[in-house]
Amino acid sequence: MKLNSNYDNIKSSYLFVEIANRVKKFSAENPSADIIKLGIGDVTRPLAPCVVEAGVKAVKEMGDAKTFRGYSPDSQGYEFLRDAISRYYASFNVKIAPHEIHVSDGAKSDCGNIVDMFDDGNVVLIPDPVYPVYLDSNVMSGRKVIFCDATEEDDFAPLPDKNLKCDIIYLCSPNNPTGAAFSYEKLKAWVDYANSLGAVIIYDAAYEAFVTEKDVPRSIFAVEGARTCAVELCSFSKTAGFTGTRCGYTVVPDELCGGKLAKMWARRQSTKYNGTSYIQQRMAEAAYSPEGVRQCRENILAYQKNANLISDALTEMNIYHTGGKNSPYIWLKCGMDSWDFFDKLLAEANVVGTPGSGFGKNGEGFFRLTAFNTYEKTAEAIDRIKKIL
Amino acid sequence: MKLNSNYDNIKSSYLFVEIANRVKKFSAENPSADIIKLGIGDVTRPLAPCVVEAGVKAVKEMGDAKTFRGYSPDSQGYEFLRDAISRYYASFNVKIAPHEIHVSDGAKSDCGNIVDMFDDGNVVLIPDPVYPVYLDSNVMSGRKVIFCDATEEDDFAPLPDKNLKCDIIYLCSPNNPTGAAFSYEKLKAWVDYANSLGAVIIYDAAYEAFVTEKDVPRSIFAVEGARTCAVELCSFSKTAGFTGTRCGYTVVPDELCGGKLAKMWARRQSTKYNGTSYIQQRMAEAAYSPEGVRQCRENILAYQKNANLISDALTEMNIYHTGGKNSPYIWLKCGMDSWDFFDKLLAEANVVGTPGSGFGKNGEGFFRLTAFNTYEKTAEAIDRIKKIL
Repeated sequence: MKLNSNYDNIKSSYLFVEIANRVKKFSAENPSADIIKLGIGDVTRPLAPCVVEAGVKAVKEMGDAKTFRGYSPDSQGYEFLRDAISRYYASFNVKIAPHEIHVSDGAKSDCGNIVDMFDDGNVVLIPDPVYPVYLDSNVMSGRKVIFCDATEEDDFAPLPDKNLKCDIIYLCSPNNPTGAAFSYEKLKAWVDYANSLGAVIIYDAAYEAFVTEKDVPRSIFAVEGARTCAVELCSFSKTAGFTGTRCGYTVVPDELCGGKLAKMWARRQSTKYNGTSYIQQRMAEAAYSPEGVRQCRENILAYQKNANLISDALTEMNIYHTGGKNSPYIWLKCGMDSWDFFDKLLAEANVVGTPGSGFGKNGEGFFRLTAFNTYEKTAEAIDRIKKIL
Repeated sequence: MKLNSNYDNIKSSYLFVEIANRVKKFSAENPSADIIKLGIGDVTRPLAPCVVEAGVKAVKEMGDAKTFRGYSPDSQGYEFLRDAISRYYASFNVKIAPHEIHVSDGAKSDCGNIVDMFDDGNVVLIPDPVYPVYLDSNVMSGRKVIFCDATEEDDFAPLPDKNLKCDIIYLCSPNNPTGAAFSYEKLKAWVDYANSLGAVIIYDAAYEAFVTEKDVPRSIFAVEGARTCAVELCSFSKTAGFTGTRCGYTVVPDELCGGKLAKMWARRQSTKYNGTSYIQQRMAEAAYSPEGVRQCRENILAYQKNANLISDALTEMNIYHTGGKNSPYIWLKCGMDSWDFFDKLLAEANVVGTPGSGFGKNGEGFFRLTAFNTYEKTAEAIDRIKKIL
C-alpha cells in the first residue's frame, strides 16, 4: 500500500506552538507577570440563552420514543434550518433558496472537503497572508498553488491580477488574519475576473456577522454575477459562538457549473457524511429566531466594542492597521520583525498577540491582535501597549 | 476549472428510492393494508436517560461563561472520551491507548475521509455484497476496485483469495447487509493476508455491540498481527443509538506504517475538521458509564430479541440465513429474484424488507430483514411471513 505522498509536502506550522512555548518560558522566568492574551482566535462568551434552551429541548426529544430522531431525512440538513438560513440571507437582501444550502458540522470541514469536487490538475490562487487551511487542503491533493499578494498598498484587500491564470480562487472577507474586508466594487472585480476565466471562487464568509460598513457585502451573493462562479462557506462559530458546538453550512447556487457542482456536493456529503446532529440544527435554528438574533448580536457587539478600543488606540498612536471595523481582528504594522515585536510586547507590556509572518510572507512586519478577550482585559492591554510604543 | 471527473463514474443507487416508490404505489392501491417495515436500517429506541442527562448538562455548560467551551484543545477529541473508549476496549481485553483513538462526528465521515491517506494508484478489495459507501468513496478518488465474493458457500464470511493482490481491504463484521460475522480464525486469515501483502485493512466495527458469540472478535485488534495492518472505524450509532446525535471514532495503532498513518490522519483532521462537539463528546462519555452501559445494553437486548425472533422463525421454516445472532440484520435466501420476493412479501404479507441485489451481484436471490422495529410489529410480521412461505 502506498501512502498519499502529497502529505510530505505540507509544511508543519509551529506558529501557535512557538507562541505557547515563548509564553511558557516568559511566565516561568516572570512568575508575577499578569499576562493578557490578545492572540485568542476563539470566541469566549457563552451561547445565547435561547440557543441553550433549544439545545436542552432537542436533547430531551432524543430521549423520548415519541420525539426521537435517527438519521436525518437527508445529509443536507433539516428543512427548518435551511429555511431559517434562507430567511437570514433575505434579511440583508440576498436571495438564496433553501435547497442551495447544505448544512454541516462546520465551515472548516466544508472548506477541507469541497476541494474533492475539483480535478487535481487545477491551479489554485490564494491570497497571502491567509488562513493556512486553504493552502494545506490543496497541498494534500497535490494541486499547484499560486499566491496573490495582499499588502499595505491595497489595505490588504487586493484586486485580481488579470495576467494571472487560475481555476480555483480563495477569498476570505472579512479576512483572517488581516480583518480587511472587500468593498462591493473590489469583490465585483474578483467575481468578474473569475467569470472571465471560468474559475470558481471559494468564499469564506465566517466573519460576516462582524460587518458594519454598508459598502461591505456580507455575502458574495450580494454581488452581481457571483451565482455563476462562487460557493460560500459560512459558520455559526463567530455569529453565534458555536466554535465548540459545531455547525456551519455551504451555499452552492443552482447556476454553478450548470447545476453539476450542487449535485456533486450533495452526493459527496451523502456518501462521506451522515448529516449534522439534530441537536445542533435546532440550536442553530434558535440563533435565527428574533430573540436569538438579539441575544447573539449582544455578543458580537461586545467583541466589536473591544475591536474599536484597539483600533481607536492604534489610530491615536498613528499606527497603520486594517480590520477592527468589520472584524474581530486588528492587523497592525509593527515596524520591525514580527517575532521581535511579539517578544517586545510580551516582555514590556505582558501582552500576547500573533506574529503576522505566521500567515505568509506578506505578514512579515505585521502583527494580529484579537477582540475576543474581556473589555476590562482589552482596555488594560491597550493602556500597557500605549505606554511602550 | 475542471471538475473531478471520477464523480461521473459513481453509479446512482436507487435502492431505497425504488423501495419507497413501490411501497407508495402499493399503499395507494391498498389503503387499508397495515404495512410493517422490516427494512429499517436506523435505530428507533430513544437515547439512554444518562446520555440525555449528560447532554442537557453539557448544553447548559455552554451557556455559562464559567463553563463555556470553544474549540476543542485538539481535533482528536477530549481526553475524557478517549480514556472512556480505551477503557471500553479493555473491558473486552483489547488494549488501545487513548492517543490511538481519534473521535469524530461519525464513522461514515471517517470511512469517507480515510481514503485521502492513500495514493490513488492503490488497488482496493471490497467484499460483495456490501455497504455501498466503501465502493463509492474510492470511485470518487479514481481508485481501481476489485471484489471478493461472499456467498452461501462461506456463510457470507469469505476467506481471502491469496492469488488476489490488493493494497486496501474493506471488512465489515458483523456485516451490513448480511449480518455475518468473522470468527477469530477467519479474521486472523485476513490479518495474515494483509500483512503478507503490506496492505491495510479498513475495518468497520459499527455493529460490534451486537456480537454475542465468544469466538467472534468485537474488534480487529483482538486478533494477533492486526496492529501492523488495520485501522478500525467505530460508531455510537448502533451501540448507543446515536444515528441522529452523531459521534464516532477511528483507531489508528502506533505500529501502522511505522506511526506515519496516525500522524497523517491527525494532520488531516486538524486541517479539514475542527473537532467533535463538546456536547456529543459528553453524551458519548455517559454511554460508557456503568449506568450508561446498562441502559444502552437494554436497547441492544430489545433489538436482539427481535433478531432472534426472525432468525428462529426462519430456522423453523428451514430457510437458509445469516446474521441475527451477532447482528440486527437477517439475510435470508429467498429462492427467487430479490425484487420479486420484495413484491411478494409486500403484496401477500404487507411486510417491507430490502432486496439483496441492491448490495451487489452476490446479493441476488437474497433479502435483508432488520430488527429495528418494535417487538410487537416484528412478531406480527413474522406470523404473516410464516403464513405465506
